[in-house]
Amino acid sequence: MTDLLSVTEELCRIPSVSGDEAALADVVETRLREDARRLQVERIGANVVARTDDGKERRIVLAGHLDTVPPNDNSQPRRDGDTLHGLGAADMKGGLAVLLQLAARAARVDGKHDATFVFYEGEEVADEHNGLRRLFAERPDLVEADLAVLLEPTGGWVEAGCQGTIHVRATFDGARAHSARAWMGANAIHRAAPLLARIAAFEAATVPVDGLDYREGLQVVRIEGGVANNVVPDRCSIVVNRRYAPNRSLDDAVEELRAICSDADHIEVVSASPAAAPNLFHPLVAELIGVYNLPVRPKLGWTDVARFASHGIGALNLGPGDPELAHTARECVERSDLDGCAAVLGSFLGLS
Amino acid sequence: MTDLLSVTEELCRIPSVSGDEAALADVVETRLREDARRLQVERIGANVVARTDDGKERRIVLAGHLDTVPPNDNSQPRRDGDTLHGLGAADMKGGLAVLLQLAARAARVDGKHDATFVFYEGEEVADEHNGLRRLFAERPDLVEADLAVLLEPTGGWVEAGCQGTIHVRATFDGARAHSARAWMGANAIHRAAPLLARIAAFEAATVPVDGLDYREGLQVVRIEGGVANNVVPDRCSIVVNRRYAPNRSLDDAVEELRAICSDADHIEVVSASPAAAPNLFHPLVAELIGVYNLPVRPKLGWTDVARFASHGIGALNLGPGDPELAHTARECVERSDLDGCAAVLGSFLGLS
Repeated sequence: MTDLLSVTEELCRIPSVSGDEAALADVVETRLREDARRLQVERIGANVVARTDDGKERRIVLAGHLDTVPPNDNSQPRRDGDTLHGLGAADMKGGLAVLLQLAARAARVDGKHDATFVFYEGEEVADEHNGLRRLFAERPDLVEADLAVLLEPTGGWVEAGCQGTIHVRATFDGARAHSARAWMGANAIHRAAPLLARIAAFEAATVPVDGLDYREGLQVVRIEGGVANNVVPDRCSIVVNRRYAPNRSLDDAVEELRAICSDADHIEVVSASPAAAPNLFHPLVAELIGVYNLPVRPKLGWTDVARFASHGIGALNLGPGDPELAHTARECVERSDLDGCAAVLGSFLGLS
Repeated sequence: MTDLLSVTEELCRIPSVSGDEAALADVVETRLREDARRLQVERIGANVVARTDDGKERRIVLAGHLDTVPPNDNSQPRRDGDTLHGLGAADMKGGLAVLLQLAARAARVDGKHDATFVFYEGEEVADEHNGLRRLFAERPDLVEADLAVLLEPTGGWVEAGCQGTIHVRATFDGARAHSARAWMGANAIHRAAPLLARIAAFEAATVPVDGLDYREGLQVVRIEGGVANNVVPDRCSIVVNRRYAPNRSLDDAVEELRAICSDADHIEVVSASPAAAPNLFHPLVAELIGVYNLPVRPKLGWTDVARFASHGIGALNLGPGDPELAHTARECVERSDLDGCAAVLGSFLGLS
């Protein structure tokens, strides 16, 4: 039995901030090939895919990203009893350790389902760098499946589906004038005030989907305007982030957000990512949750489950580590969480 | 009779953007000393002062700043008939040409009043660089007078007094959170929205003083906030500019502005400049306006008349050039405006 905490620590010792995942991909690829037996291993960029091909009725893809956010005074992992602290411990080298253990078993044991293990780059940065995006574009055969499990940190919960996220930049124009004669100009910051007030007062809905409560959000995340201290500003631009529940299409949500911002002079959609339905009644999802009696909650942040969903593949988040501590200096993972996650997934795949 | 348009052009050919006035101060000092006769000339930094000392009952100070704002594709002066275009033509090398001509006459002719001609640096930038500030601090004897005339461009109008101007930075705090779980944080931009709405809706008063209508103003001139597109921002800061009529003290106006911004977490007074009363009933002001039947309007922007006023010296703005074109690429001055201004002031000083 692998010591998952030690493997996680080993993986944490290999820096892999987004854009710099090759060394970690090398280590993962080497491990998978050493012990391949029944696994087919492929490397594409800094993405590594290992799959069984036993002609089973169902295929499960299990995926984890190799990259981390930049260090936060926590680049060196540190053990404290059965807890591992450090960058990537939860998000998500603990999940990668679980994936490596499951792949090693799948290399030996004939499981219940075919399994695909995906280790990919560029998840923590702009979508254009996302390794899953590349695989879906270049090698869809490597990521096709009946169910996808993302090993994002969920603390052992099933985090079902995910909310969609949209960013728009809304810009207000004005006309410059000396601020001593403001009436000769038009203040773009003042023109933005009603929209800001509307967003600040907006009561975001809580939307039940499959019995899960998705709590939506509408936030101004950036604002800038101003020319000089004696000049009426002729431009004010805000970035608005909408988080919306998976009962709506991306197009509908974008339309709604455009309508909210309709008094702006220019509206630019900066990013637009679809939501993913929780799919609790998908037979494989139901099986996973039901048999192991896993606790279920909605995923509020966006994850790559939405990418699988947009390709018609049911997906859920289930991985070790506290999601609340991801991206913070206090990031950590517990041995029991690693072992529990490996046990549930190993059993589900028929590998235990 | 000097050709004032040619002298203005000559002065415009000597760059003197704020901080770089020494070359122009050299030229001015040389001219004044060449022809000094009855004038005492002193140089302090890039400030030059020339004064008569004939023991007259009244002393008039006439002042103009040497510096310009940065060029706006207009660094080379250009003649078009009796119009001179270019950086500084109106603000205020036309005024400097008038001052040089008046000083040359005062060097020869025994006038009605003692006269002090002040050419000073650093008017277009932060107050700490202002040459008049330095003179009042180091050599108040050089700037004491019964009346001060600032040759700021007024198009031949008397622009009486000036409004005060205050800048405060109002900052709102919040608490960061992932924007997918916004309720775990506090959005500082949202917290700023009510203040922005209040300022945008503020109806600035028009205040009559000595029969002149001072049109006040309240403008947000800068705003910034935001950490990252997925983060609820924990800080939003705005700069508010208040312009207020000379019926109020600076302290009262600062208090009022603090009260307007009272829901901010931090209020920093960035700048605070007093207003100056129009002083239309000051005997010398009344004489200047009455005898030459000059049109009078209130000065809405801040000028150094407020500095003289704060030292107990009545002051007004009267100079050649359209104030609306100052600081724009279309800045220019007309020969008739230069000649008219020189005639009025020369006559007032008893030099014609």
